[in-house]
Amino acid sequence: MITSDTIIALSTPPGSGAIGVIRLSGPDAVRLTNQVFSGKDLEKQESHTLHFGLIKNDHVIIDEVVVSLFIAPKSYTKENVVEISCHGSNYIIQQIINLLISKGARAAKPGEFTLRAFLNGAFDLSQAEAVADLIASNSKASHDVAMQQMRGGFANELKDLRSQLIHFASMIELELDFAEEDVEFANRAELESLIQKINKVLQRLIHSFEIGNVIKNGVPVVIAGKPNVGKSTLLNALLNEERAIVSDIAGTTRDTIEDEININGVVFRFIDTAGIRETADIIEAKGVERTLDKMKQAKLIIYLVDAQEDEADVLKQLEGLAQQQIPYLFVVNKAELLDAQKKNKYQELEALLISAKDKIGIDTLEQALLNKVNLSHINTSETLVTNIRHVEALKHTQNSLNNVLMHIHNPVTSDFLAMDIKQALHYLGEITGTVTTDDLLDNIFTKFCIGK
Amino acid sequence: MITSDTIIALSTPPGSGAIGVIRLSGPDAVRLTNQVFSGKDLEKQESHTLHFGLIKNDHVIIDEVVVSLFIAPKSYTKENVVEISCHGSNYIIQQIINLLISKGARAAKPGEFTLRAFLNGAFDLSQAEAVADLIASNSKASHDVAMQQMRGGFANELKDLRSQLIHFASMIELELDFAEEDVEFANRAELESLIQKINKVLQRLIHSFEIGNVIKNGVPVVIAGKPNVGKSTLLNALLNEERAIVSDIAGTTRDTIEDEININGVVFRFIDTAGIRETADIIEAKGVERTLDKMKQAKLIIYLVDAQEDEADVLKQLEGLAQQQIPYLFVVNKAELLDAQKKNKYQELEALLISAKDKIGIDTLEQALLNKVNLSHINTSETLVTNIRHVEALKHTQNSLNNVLMHIHNPVTSDFLAMDIKQALHYLGEITGTVTTDDLLDNIFTKFCIGK
Repeated sequence: MITSDTIIALSTPPGSGAIGVIRLSGPDAVRLTNQVFSGKDLEKQESHTLHFGLIKNDHVIIDEVVVSLFIAPKSYTKENVVEISCHGSNYIIQQIINLLISKGARAAKPGEFTLRAFLNGAFDLSQAEAVADLIASNSKASHDVAMQQMRGGFANELKDLRSQLIHFASMIELELDFAEEDVEFANRAELESLIQKINKVLQRLIHSFEIGNVIKNGVPVVIAGKPNVGKSTLLNALLNEERAIVSDIAGTTRDTIEDEININGVVFRFIDTAGIRETADIIEAKGVERTLDKMKQAKLIIYLVDAQEDEADVLKQLEGLAQQQIPYLFVVNKAELLDAQKKNKYQELEALLISAKDKIGIDTLEQALLNKVNLSHINTSETLVTNIRHVEALKHTQNSLNNVLMHIHNPVTSDFLAMDIKQALHYLGEITGTVTTDDLLDNIFTKFCIGK
Repeated sequence: MITSDTIIALSTPPGSGAIGVIRLSGPDAVRLTNQVFSGKDLEKQESHTLHFGLIKNDHVIIDEVVVSLFIAPKSYTKENVVEISCHGSNYIIQQIINLLISKGARAAKPGEFTLRAFLNGAFDLSQAEAVADLIASNSKASHDVAMQQMRGGFANELKDLRSQLIHFASMIELELDFAEEDVEFANRAELESLIQKINKVLQRLIHSFEIGNVIKNGVPVVIAGKPNVGKSTLLNALLNEERAIVSDIAGTTRDTIEDEININGVVFRFIDTAGIRETADIIEAKGVERTLDKMKQAKLIIYLVDAQEDEADVLKQLEGLAQQQIPYLFVVNKAELLDAQKKNKYQELEALLISAKDKIGIDTLEQALLNKVNLSHINTSETLVTNIRHVEALKHTQNSLNNVLMHIHNPVTSDFLAMDIKQALHYLGEITGTVTTDDLLDNIFTKFCIGK
């Protein structure tokens, strides 16, 4: 793609920091910067070099800066890219951006740098989407999956099969050209075997979304149980544990996301914690019902009972739970108060014995949470689908391919076959962006942050 | 200064952005980065070059990054400096910093990069302080003053005079060596004329603090007046005006500082606006007293009266105000309700006639605010003192020099003279940092942000 305009945006987070980085991309990136830069002639410098100098508006010095030059096509967008590293004052950043806009640059839209990179063939669409996922990643697992995808996981997975399918499509097109002669250029048995191969990959990828989604968005967990059993104390114990683990490296204050914990790289999101905190130990009546309602949103339930609750009643609760068909952990609080017989009974039911108040058994509970989602076998170097858009496209591809199979078994004219193969290729192409529409691109890139 | 360790910190603001920049400085900056970088051998690259590659922890890819190399002494700190531009995910940033710390880097303390730059002679102490001011600058005036200081304003102003004073100091030391012979190497008349020249500069600098402080910290303004006269409506009118002017450039969301307006580059801070909003038009009783109390913190008062207030009472209020000895603007709200006679009377008293609700007269009021602080004649390319530490040092210098003058007029032995000149040089040296103590440095640099 040839773009005629040069875009500009702040690429670092707003707010006060030591430095801010302003990025320009486009044919005039170097020329425009050169107009406001004093130090040396930037247009005469090599790619991948750094230059100290002043940004001036006429004779007024705006800042001392370091300019990075990336000359097309050796840049993120494959266009000329300039990065201006200035002092991290919002006043200065605004002045520099304003100045360059007055010289002819245009304020970039969200994700526009990455959009240009995609349009210029730096990477495919699924890789572009992975850039946003990577920036948003907040755990080892979500990071690893995004990284794998950014480095081309998807494309590699499908490239070969796709090109074989394209080969068949063209063979069948050929058949259409020779329709009167009734020849078969495309071997139906080979086509069938190819489709079955593709379907196997598709199936695995579609299936991987279940885990991919958990990795990207965390595991929604509900802590349920009757009032007064210590739900909020347990929640605090779990969250405090986390606070202690996250040692803030100077300068990288973690965006504290309330009510999430990260166990071995997997994020567990506690839902309705406001409800727990608010109702716990106060409101007798609606607490449980409300929690039961919330359970449906959970992937996992921590069911908490008090050691002193009536045993028969507890067993009844567990039966009710089993009917919900959501995996749960049976957790007994104030376990030190259990008598031997009850303890035996509960242990047979695989109860986890804890004391939330004294933070006893919390480690074991965390391990149990992790085991329950059973992510241990995940190989994050494998392609996992984390994006609902991709799952949809994969399912559509699968449908079209199944139609092709049907046509092979119940022979129809080649044009039906051709149409369905084309459909399959279309949907497959949507994932990596060989097929795109403006709407699709808008939809994807407006979710990006500005400056990327 | 030779530092043996290599420091590391995030130099861009925390939070999600397109990119984050991690900075290392120290003898091992390149070597340590090279250990985790794959792409090329960074130790064999030239200064001021950019390198795309991967940061890996063993075989796990943490990120695709661009590394900037600044080889000593051609860097901000005059040490080896590496900047790693990575994806702006806090997870990634923490991973990279952790990894490099595990290889031997140390988390930087606030301002430690700038401290090293100072200790390595990249600039003097007043310039180092100006770096922090520059980052904090939020208006044209505060920016220009900080920039002037960062580019050596102070040092240039004093350098010549200081070296002449040093010359005299050494002459007088010489006299001490030949004490028995009672000779005068240092011409007392010339010394006196030099000191008077220095004192004139000191006087101007000390005096400039009044304005420098306003520029750096803004002008504290109180809107005072009886309840129900429309104080909160006026405040909103002034602030809304501002909101409209500040056009947010995409990506540079301005830290919205509530209750500040920027008029022609000068910041006016409205104090006790919470009080105004809360009491206005509700609480009859304590409103005014409370405001009178707040007035003492103001540099400027907007005294607001209602057009329909009793004239005699208004005149009494103004008399009371005059006794406060704080400059004020007499502003009449709902001015459309004034009768001709009252209007004449008020205009004689230089009243500003406004209607806060209809936003009439707000422009004129803003202009009047600006005129009142009388900054129009300021030349921000002149050195203005904005730092209380500098004013203190200047005043101490002046004291010591006055002692020298006294000794010249009431001759004492040369050693008294020598002592006072040395004192003066000591205080002068504190400003630019030729004389420092660890405490002084600590005090200055701990106020910096991390990563600078």
